[in-house]
Amino acid sequence: MKHIAESTVRRLSLYLRFLEQSRREGKDTISSGDLAGLGGTTSAQVRKDLSFFGSFGTRGLGYSVSALSRRIREILGLEREWRVVIIGAGKIGAALAQYRGFADRGYRIVGIYDVAPARIGVSLDGITVRDQKELEGDAARLKPEIALLAVPPTAAQTLVERAAKAGIRGILNFAPAQIHAPAGVEVRHVDMALELEILSYALTNARKK
Amino acid sequence: MKHIAESTVRRLSLYLRFLEQSRREGKDTISSGDLAGLGGTTSAQVRKDLSFFGSFGTRGLGYSVSALSRRIREILGLEREWRVVIIGAGKIGAALAQYRGFADRGYRIVGIYDVAPARIGVSLDGITVRDQKELEGDAARLKPEIALLAVPPTAAQTLVERAAKAGIRGILNFAPAQIHAPAGVEVRHVDMALELEILSYALTNARKK
Repeated sequence: MKHIAESTVRRLSLYLRFLEQSRREGKDTISSGDLAGLGGTTSAQVRKDLSFFGSFGTRGLGYSVSALSRRIREILGLEREWRVVIIGAGKIGAALAQYRGFADRGYRIVGIYDVAPARIGVSLDGITVRDQKELEGDAARLKPEIALLAVPPTAAQTLVERAAKAGIRGILNFAPAQIHAPAGVEVRHVDMALELEILSYALTNARKK
Repeated sequence: MKHIAESTVRRLSLYLRFLEQSRREGKDTISSGDLAGLGGTTSAQVRKDLSFFGSFGTRGLGYSVSALSRRIREILGLEREWRVVIIGAGKIGAALAQYRGFADRGYRIVGIYDVAPARIGVSLDGITVRDQKELEGDAARLKPEIALLAVPPTAAQTLVERAAKAGIRGILNFAPAQIHAPAGVEVRHVDMALELEILSYALTNARKK
């Protein structure tokens, strides 16, 4: 498959949400105009995005909801289960452990780790928090592929390197820290503090207008 | 002040983290090279970013950590307190309520709202969850400026509109939903599910190489 730009992957992910919503509403087809309206883009963009992957539309009828959903899930790698560990069982890590949205998408939490004695042994939605020093030993057995990293910023880089050595290839980092990704490891960031600062910058400047 | 591109605002926010770290380490000055290395960019880019806002550097000595921190905080709107409400006290909303990173940056939580009777009245880090129908009445008194929206996707748009009518000008949305921002309201998204899908797309394609 040819390389798809990140902006396209983002839109595919949004289209999939609308397709799944349409399926829940009992619709068999959806037009490029509907997908565009929901995704905040144009019909032409929708057709261009989807034309990469084959033909799903019938002129005048629109796209088949089930065929297109299946194809997008395939493209995004959602037609399989991903084994996920959570590193850090503080406020954010615990919320992630209990977030149902992940399981719905095939992300299965296989382990949760922390260093604090008070957290080790606690059960979060049926999974017991384990001592972080067990990460590598457990990984050899559980073969996690993705790590959600919710540790203090000062611990983030070390844990990314440990996760990489343990065979984890994808990391979603929640720590407000700059991370140097080891070779062959994809690191993405969810940076709430950064988003809030962009927001307060926008509000500050809106006031000055 | 002239308009600054979002990519620049992001870098300023990262520079600020490094400056604050340098201050904690007792450093008085920092070079553009150090800032660049930490921020994953070049010295030239750092100098260009900072030249917008005046002169902080001395050739051979670098930037003054305290003067530059203060100026970036001013630009980002962090030299003041922001009044924040959290809408939705589920797993994510509760984690946000208890996240210390916000208070450290001057974001003060003044209210938390939910619709579920089991959550209303519960105290989260000293703030009692209130009935969501009190949002507008409370806002008239508390004058919140920013809302963190952590509600189910189907409720998100309605709540954005209610928040906007209540005078809230900035919304950080955690719901996996497409939001149409009312006029004069800045909406930013923290979309964990989307980031995970971009990650699984990248891992799926890395395998195929």
